[in-house]
Amino acid sequence: MTAQYDVAAIGNAIVDVIAQADDAFLDAESLAKGSMMLIDEDRAHQLYGRMGPGLETSGGSAGNTVAGVASLGGNAAYVGKVAKDQLGEVFGHDMRSIGVHFATAPLASGPATARSLINVTGDGQRTMCTFLGASTELTADDVDPAVIEASAILYLEGYLFDPVEARRAFAKASAIARTSERLISLTLSDAFVVERHRDALLGFIDTQVDIVFGNEVELASLFQTDDFDAAAKAMGERARIAAITRGEAGSVVLSGGQAIAVPASPVQKVVDTTGAGDQYAAGFLLGLARGRPLDVCGRLGSLAAAEVISHYGPRPQTSLRELAAAAGLM
Amino acid sequence: MTAQYDVAAIGNAIVDVIAQADDAFLDAESLAKGSMMLIDEDRAHQLYGRMGPGLETSGGSAGNTVAGVASLGGNAAYVGKVAKDQLGEVFGHDMRSIGVHFATAPLASGPATARSLINVTGDGQRTMCTFLGASTELTADDVDPAVIEASAILYLEGYLFDPVEARRAFAKASAIARTSERLISLTLSDAFVVERHRDALLGFIDTQVDIVFGNEVELASLFQTDDFDAAAKAMGERARIAAITRGEAGSVVLSGGQAIAVPASPVQKVVDTTGAGDQYAAGFLLGLARGRPLDVCGRLGSLAAAEVISHYGPRPQTSLRELAAAAGLM
Repeated sequence: MTAQYDVAAIGNAIVDVIAQADDAFLDAESLAKGSMMLIDEDRAHQLYGRMGPGLETSGGSAGNTVAGVASLGGNAAYVGKVAKDQLGEVFGHDMRSIGVHFATAPLASGPATARSLINVTGDGQRTMCTFLGASTELTADDVDPAVIEASAILYLEGYLFDPVEARRAFAKASAIARTSERLISLTLSDAFVVERHRDALLGFIDTQVDIVFGNEVELASLFQTDDFDAAAKAMGERARIAAITRGEAGSVVLSGGQAIAVPASPVQKVVDTTGAGDQYAAGFLLGLARGRPLDVCGRLGSLAAAEVISHYGPRPQTSLRELAAAAGLM
Repeated sequence: MTAQYDVAAIGNAIVDVIAQADDAFLDAESLAKGSMMLIDEDRAHQLYGRMGPGLETSGGSAGNTVAGVASLGGNAAYVGKVAKDQLGEVFGHDMRSIGVHFATAPLASGPATARSLINVTGDGQRTMCTFLGASTELTADDVDPAVIEASAILYLEGYLFDPVEARRAFAKASAIARTSERLISLTLSDAFVVERHRDALLGFIDTQVDIVFGNEVELASLFQTDDFDAAAKAMGERARIAAITRGEAGSVVLSGGQAIAVPASPVQKVVDTTGAGDQYAAGFLLGLARGRPLDVCGRLGSLAAAEVISHYGPRPQTSLRELAAAAGLM
């Protein structure tokens, strides 16, 4: 069956607040560089009050990925919960303006639209503190079966293993994708997510998932080993396809007992690594949905990641389709 | 009397929504490239719905200028009206987080925080459509005499000649500055503002203003001539100091019958010209408040403008103080 959408993604719908910071600020606020920490509304207000001036821009891991798919010329759909407020309006606008199908009803009352307070240090590393707000109010009812059935690949955020209702939405979407003979992909999202939900994630990977995305830290957490080769071997034995990102070292794509090393794309200056993994997934997924070989999928991922880390903000600011065409990948 | 603040500014408190656009989009929306057009809320919703994905960031001409003063290491205060909503909170945060004194009470009920929908074309030009919202609710009561008395230079936006109440706020602030022996500066803001309020602006310049900022288009509108030299001569005869920006050609500082030509600072690539004039004013004003010669004031203006046009967004993203120090201007 041909697919109307290349990718349908379910994730936490989040607006990013990006500010510059130095290491001393991270230390003073007890923030571990490079991590994603969940915070409550009080802490969000307190931390925001101490941060530098911000750039606000739509974010959320899976939201960034579908934005990347759209920038590559793909068709995408997104499911995620915002509130009926100004930041929710911004999030919805930014999805629809790039042609992403986004029809999840905003939360009429309750917590505000989620925001992630992102402090970017001079080395380009991002440290995220996320107030999940309305995004955790996503339920199985928000999953439109017709959208999942119409999408070549379902993409799920590991972050959504935290709220119980969202896991029900995952289960529903996965069941629909499976019966519609669609592919199911999952990103591990964050080493702490893996720490909190290791067994559930492994069970999900074993029974449901076709493609797993993660970085080497998440992989190490999943298999509780610092030995990358051992962790990659374990991953390769469980997942049909796994794509593991390694920063400057590129990525490794594991499939059918093979490991394909994919180089990183060159970047003049790393400004802000926010969204690097999300864009890697975007490139990889679009390649896969369009039937490209796995090494090309990985290179599309590298290309998309390189664009996004060259500027502030987690979504492409240059047409990825044009960049991919110029690189001979499309 | 020593001044607690280098600059106190009064302006329309606006959040910018920056999106990329092409010339065809401007044509289809009947937008004149490089202009600032006022729009109502309905048109704002309509236009926003048609624009590409956005970056949200605090803006407003005078707000950008005080942000530049702060980035140069100066002390600044700001008076402007936001609503009690999420974008208003963002605006207030962005002021206070850079150390700008901002104590104007937000509007409790009524229109939302002002926003400027800015379409940036590939040539770096910005075309602005501004919904003024809460910003026009500024009144004379919002002007704290103690702040104006404590500021070496009062800076006023020509944009505020539109709302009648805001002009009363101007008059009040100017009277306080005058009796406190402070300097009064004014930016012409926009050629259409000049068109609408030519006589009032000229009267204000003749009787109150020490320093006038404008670009060559605004100057041409003010004196109704396309002959730059003639317009500059007319300006030089009326204003104690005038600084006229000319884009790539730099600026001309007029004072005491003299005209000082100041070169533009080199820019690798012009990304977004939003805020160029505002940052020029920031550099110039800080130089003046710190007693620098006029040519150095102009060069500080050029330096600040060059930083801001090299990236999206109307406020500095690099420490202007460090750039100025490296250039031997501080």
